[in-house]
Amino acid sequence: MNAIEEPSRCVDEDRLRDDIETNGEYGAISVAEGRGRTVLPGTEANRQVREYFIERLEDAGLGTRVDSVGNVVGRWVPDGADPDAPAVAAGSHLDSVPEGGIFDGVLGVYGALEAVRALQETGVDLGRPVEVVCFTEEEGTRFSNGVLGSAVASGQQSVEEALALEDSEGITLADALTDIDAKGTGRLDASAWDSWLEIHVEQSSRLEDANVPVGIVTSITGTIRCSVDIMGEADHSGCAAMSERTDALAAASELVLDVEAATEDVVTEKGDTVVGTVGKLDVSPNAINVVPGRVELGIDIRDVEYDSMATIVGEVEASLARLEAERGVATTFERPYDIEPIAMDDRCTNALAEAATESGISTMELHSGAGHDTMHVAKVTDSGMIFAPSRDGISHNPLEWTDWGSCATATRVLAGGIARLARTPSV
Amino acid sequence: MNAIEEPSRCVDEDRLRDDIETNGEYGAISVAEGRGRTVLPGTEANRQVREYFIERLEDAGLGTRVDSVGNVVGRWVPDGADPDAPAVAAGSHLDSVPEGGIFDGVLGVYGALEAVRALQETGVDLGRPVEVVCFTEEEGTRFSNGVLGSAVASGQQSVEEALALEDSEGITLADALTDIDAKGTGRLDASAWDSWLEIHVEQSSRLEDANVPVGIVTSITGTIRCSVDIMGEADHSGCAAMSERTDALAAASELVLDVEAATEDVVTEKGDTVVGTVGKLDVSPNAINVVPGRVELGIDIRDVEYDSMATIVGEVEASLARLEAERGVATTFERPYDIEPIAMDDRCTNALAEAATESGISTMELHSGAGHDTMHVAKVTDSGMIFAPSRDGISHNPLEWTDWGSCATATRVLAGGIARLARTPSV
Repeated sequence: MNAIEEPSRCVDEDRLRDDIETNGEYGAISVAEGRGRTVLPGTEANRQVREYFIERLEDAGLGTRVDSVGNVVGRWVPDGADPDAPAVAAGSHLDSVPEGGIFDGVLGVYGALEAVRALQETGVDLGRPVEVVCFTEEEGTRFSNGVLGSAVASGQQSVEEALALEDSEGITLADALTDIDAKGTGRLDASAWDSWLEIHVEQSSRLEDANVPVGIVTSITGTIRCSVDIMGEADHSGCAAMSERTDALAAASELVLDVEAATEDVVTEKGDTVVGTVGKLDVSPNAINVVPGRVELGIDIRDVEYDSMATIVGEVEASLARLEAERGVATTFERPYDIEPIAMDDRCTNALAEAATESGISTMELHSGAGHDTMHVAKVTDSGMIFAPSRDGISHNPLEWTDWGSCATATRVLAGGIARLARTPSV
Repeated sequence: MNAIEEPSRCVDEDRLRDDIETNGEYGAISVAEGRGRTVLPGTEANRQVREYFIERLEDAGLGTRVDSVGNVVGRWVPDGADPDAPAVAAGSHLDSVPEGGIFDGVLGVYGALEAVRALQETGVDLGRPVEVVCFTEEEGTRFSNGVLGSAVASGQQSVEEALALEDSEGITLADALTDIDAKGTGRLDASAWDSWLEIHVEQSSRLEDANVPVGIVTSITGTIRCSVDIMGEADHSGCAAMSERTDALAAASELVLDVEAATEDVVTEKGDTVVGTVGKLDVSPNAINVVPGRVELGIDIRDVEYDSMATIVGEVEASLARLEAERGVATTFERPYDIEPIAMDDRCTNALAEAATESGISTMELHSGAGHDTMHVAKVTDSGMIFAPSRDGISHNPLEWTDWGSCATATRVLAGGIARLARTPSV
């Protein structure tokens, strides 16, 4: 019997499903179809989710700790492992978007716990501790733009800065965590880990389309977000002749189409990992009988290559210069969010691929278009990530769905990956 | 002494200014520049405005009445006139848009009253009664899409329908009028008038640009409003490849530019009276990281020729068909508002033009791109309209301004016009 293959066999689909379904009851919302939940950080539903998670960690014999920003860690030191060796860690997050689904983040956390339980039952020899992690506010719904707990754990943001963040009503993260008894001490330090693995639902349909059960993530795209303001002149829609107008919406419409065209040019040249989206557009005064005086746009550009993103940003700036010259609008351009693409580490990717092969699970390589906690952890620790198929590619929605069998399959690959990374004794 | 020219000389700029400034104190708002007021129908400010107006009508010896929808009429039967002859009527409205200016509508009402006072002082022989009118809710800010009182007076809408209209809080016009003691009885019947005249501020800058004090309106543009709904598919901005998207905002942007191009084509072919505007555009879900799933647009098309408007509507429908075929969006198209252009009557236009000439006041002919109460009255009674210059063309804004001298000049033309129309005895 292969000591590495064994944990894969011990993954218990029903036990995993029980955890995900029980977790899904906290903050559950009533929906006509699917299963929805709203679990924002620092809320009663978040308290319940955390309480259940710590209970389950303890049931599995893991020692638990919570850091100052509410990151939760369960630690298992296998018999014979060096307790001082850097741990192999795995996990994700348990918060959700408003009216989100029951899998996003949750599969990564309970998949990691199930992998540990499988490793415990297998009795495979491991040289390193294994940690199961739940990061605070991955979704960025209340205090931040997202991936908050992992930003702190990877040293991208200080504990103090994070705790001082306020929600729309002026409540700080510190107070919200204290309210639900979720504020611990110290700082979880991801750089101390030997390696990090995360399972996540794919959130697109490449696995489903290819009928492949597990995706091995090669890189997470970078994201540049641009805020554009186009100022024209508000005017009476009946009285202002066409030649007298400075219509901010007509100018903005050209920009929307320029973003689309510039992105499609890069797709043609370099492939379809690059995306450019104008998702947000607000017109002022937005009345049917007034020529629009101002339009604010939010542009989101992503790719696995930073240069491609920069090319599109350049086209946005060129488009604005042209609109100023041709239409007489005034424009402003800001880039409030600029995260470089990050590649997964071969050591982790290979461990996951080998685990899949040995269990006879087929995989495909793909990139992640969405941001994840792994994006931050990968800056300080060797990291790997796998995707489970999302039905119809839907996520952030009660219709988000990953078959229970697929949840277990991804967890088998994770368990095998952890075993491979943890068997190496501390150096 | 010419009995027709005389009333022009008796127009008292200071008396007119006093009325407009006093009226402007009701519902006044504090602004850094200009003079603003908010007088929505059925509010306390509206009650004050009406009370002052009735007081001023009575001070001038006019008999007053208020109809069921709150239209206010002051009636003067000159000595020697036939009280049963159809009256010559003039007026406008006293309600404002939120944070509007002090001239829009007000100049038409108090200009008409000042014209009557001038006619009284002149002692000119008139054969017909003269009525001074204030219509209810011209601006369409609370109960209707606008020109409500004149729609009822011209038989376009029934008293019952109008009274049952509700504001956003479910309060009916009937209750709102009763609350401020402004609900009278019967229905003002514009078709019983011999003729109708209205002064209004221009709301564009053609008079100012031409340095001409009075504009004689030849026609009021028609207006077609279209409501368009474009349904695409909301998707994750990072996960949905460009080729997999059905982006409702990209489609809507093409439509915005198609409306602009179609309108400019008609301008090139037929002249610049035609205008086409996408003034309202709402994106769903309108988040920077979501490909837009739906866009709702409001399009406003106006011209003095209905055919030109119909041409643009046809282009809108063709654009939607193309977007469905090329982009895979679903679209709906409605036309909730469709008012034909209406020409002013030569009898009225000539009376106004002659009055101006005789007083040495230069005029220019122009069309009205904005809708006015005259648009409804002209369907049932010979009608004419004059414009006073708007500084920088601004209206619906505390910066709306017409010099006091220009207010008086337009009132002189109105007084002469009323005199010409009213001297003819009843037939």
